[in-house]
Amino acid sequence: VSYSYAKRVQNIKSSAVRDILKVLDRQNMISFAGGLPSDELFPLDAVEAAFEKTFKGGKKSLQYGLTEGFTPLREIIVSLLAARKIETSVERILVTTGSQQAIDLFARTTVDPGDIVLTENPTYLAANQVFSSYEAKIIPVLSDDEGMDPEDLEKKIQEYKPKCIYVVPTFSNPLGRVWSLSRRKSALQIAKKYGVIIFEDDPYGELKFHLDEEYRPIASLDDGKNVLYTSTFSKTVVPALRTGWVTGPSEIIHMMAQFKQAADLHSNSLSQQALYHLLTDFDLNNHIQEIRDEYKKRMLLMDEYLRKANIEGMSYIPPKGGMFLWLKLDPSINTTELLTKAVDQGVAYVPGAPFYVTDPEQNTLRLNFSHSSPEKIKEGIRILSRVFEEALQGAQK
Amino acid sequence: VSYSYAKRVQNIKSSAVRDILKVLDRQNMISFAGGLPSDELFPLDAVEAAFEKTFKGGKKSLQYGLTEGFTPLREIIVSLLAARKIETSVERILVTTGSQQAIDLFARTTVDPGDIVLTENPTYLAANQVFSSYEAKIIPVLSDDEGMDPEDLEKKIQEYKPKCIYVVPTFSNPLGRVWSLSRRKSALQIAKKYGVIIFEDDPYGELKFHLDEEYRPIASLDDGKNVLYTSTFSKTVVPALRTGWVTGPSEIIHMMAQFKQAADLHSNSLSQQALYHLLTDFDLNNHIQEIRDEYKKRMLLMDEYLRKANIEGMSYIPPKGGMFLWLKLDPSINTTELLTKAVDQGVAYVPGAPFYVTDPEQNTLRLNFSHSSPEKIKEGIRILSRVFEEALQGAQK
Repeated sequence: VSYSYAKRVQNIKSSAVRDILKVLDRQNMISFAGGLPSDELFPLDAVEAAFEKTFKGGKKSLQYGLTEGFTPLREIIVSLLAARKIETSVERILVTTGSQQAIDLFARTTVDPGDIVLTENPTYLAANQVFSSYEAKIIPVLSDDEGMDPEDLEKKIQEYKPKCIYVVPTFSNPLGRVWSLSRRKSALQIAKKYGVIIFEDDPYGELKFHLDEEYRPIASLDDGKNVLYTSTFSKTVVPALRTGWVTGPSEIIHMMAQFKQAADLHSNSLSQQALYHLLTDFDLNNHIQEIRDEYKKRMLLMDEYLRKANIEGMSYIPPKGGMFLWLKLDPSINTTELLTKAVDQGVAYVPGAPFYVTDPEQNTLRLNFSHSSPEKIKEGIRILSRVFEEALQGAQK
Repeated sequence: VSYSYAKRVQNIKSSAVRDILKVLDRQNMISFAGGLPSDELFPLDAVEAAFEKTFKGGKKSLQYGLTEGFTPLREIIVSLLAARKIETSVERILVTTGSQQAIDLFARTTVDPGDIVLTENPTYLAANQVFSSYEAKIIPVLSDDEGMDPEDLEKKIQEYKPKCIYVVPTFSNPLGRVWSLSRRKSALQIAKKYGVIIFEDDPYGELKFHLDEEYRPIASLDDGKNVLYTSTFSKTVVPALRTGWVTGPSEIIHMMAQFKQAADLHSNSLSQQALYHLLTDFDLNNHIQEIRDEYKKRMLLMDEYLRKANIEGMSYIPPKGGMFLWLKLDPSINTTELLTKAVDQGVAYVPGAPFYVTDPEQNTLRLNFSHSSPEKIKEGIRILSRVFEEALQGAQK
């Protein structure tokens, strides 16, 4: 039987990297590959207590819920956002199955085949997958360590008339980059000037290592009309609850809710109720501080071991937060080719190339420092350094 | 600011009926409108115990999961399907956020703008919404009390070359209809002949009132190549877990999993683990029998009160299972217009018209009998009968 698919199927491809990384369940593998938070820091007792409390609410708690989400949870999200200086209201909060679904529903609401989406380069792989799956054409905007280049952004808007600009301005995936305030302001100003929506993806913003620094979400600089903002509880509470949210102009949020109704009626409501109880009873800020401290420690360890290894041609900027460290190796090294060798030695990473929209730099890779214990980080970097050294020597022969 | 949406936005409309029914949270409203299972029958203790057991599994249970779903749950689903005489394997099970998401992912994998989807008429409203949202053109196939008419099905396939046939052959929504075995066989045979996929939606199949009767899923008559089959735990366990699944040809399931990765990475994994424990420890078959007994009792009560009311021009076929009774009134009555009056009197239903793809019969309506208590069914039918009588008298003036 030969099946007849939709055209958009051509834009969904299983990556070779994903196939290699499927072996990661193997015992003793040290993985710097995934985007996983640390299991050890999950507030298991608080989650369990929150579910118990939900069940005390009786059988009604097990019934179908609203497409838009559990209202008391949405109220709490409004105050969480107020703390990030984003003004919004319950009606403008849509609860989603992780922030991934927020990106998907936005694309579904906005993107026709052939439409242009502007992004950073490299950028979050699974966002590109979403936009591609709706047959968008993704055009990269030049960026540097401060964020998107305003001149190039304006030029690309004029040239391509994009439907939206997708950005991760705080501890981006994969770069771990933080945009400066002035770049955030410029991007918003230019987007407003041309009436283009900014879709701001902020899963990592809370995971900052320097408490004295403030990273204003672009949405907090907006008047509620030009920015869609998504975030999630996956990195601050636990991923298994699959609960994220999106806020923005009410008209767009309302439209996304209608598509969500078609997509899955509503997200898991038991988890939403439990999250409501957890956020009411539990000191989330204190918990987030623990996560920050631990991730900072792990990042600094990774940084220390990398510096000690002193690999020729290697460079990186120690990230100010988030979960990723972006490594650039000597141009003679192709990290995609090297992956099999590293996995054979017991360490996994993600090569940089798949994150690029165009012009991949083959000598880059992404290291996750949140999921591995300090011991594993030490051992993993030791092994990786040896793999890199051998590759360098091989290249010089 | 004027926002620029995707073309598919035109096909998503908030229905007037939905707006009226939004008031249903009102105290004391008797609602025959929704598709809600009975709260009273939710196995709260078993669900709570299953979550406790999941938490005993430790912090790992709170981590990200596989896109395809929690493997031990998928193994159990394979055996549940074997009991329905559907042969499949773990690799061909994709866990979804309710069966709604299974429909959505299938449409996303299959439907290009302008493609034809064949359906019954009337049929499940939210499936039509999904197919429309991918800009499919929906063409109804003639049906009668036995199911889809094979001649018309073949004619429509020849004429329209559809991408798929969407059917709910067992206790359909809204009709409560059961297809005969011979109609199931004919539909499959014709679909095979022309290489068209059947998408079989079976949320209600377990809720049967006559244990001696067997309703073979069309998928159980297939060789695994021509039918996609979706079902859910929402009606047999609880809706709040939002856990459904889909099985079918491995190539299509694999493709749907790739789109699911883009759509939401994976469904709530805590609920999937809890469902695994629940299905291992709890006598689901016994529980389903309780649901059948209670729903049958409620349906028979509704039937009894409707017969007693003896409304002129009213007709219906008492359903053999499921959650809905489909009522046809005197042709002079427009049930959409009558809804406001009924709601004013404290009873809600869903008018039949929105379920039709074409040629709506304005004198039809859908009554849900699963969610209201026996007392409310009595009171609700008493009020509705009065509303119908008044409408009849009004029409005769």
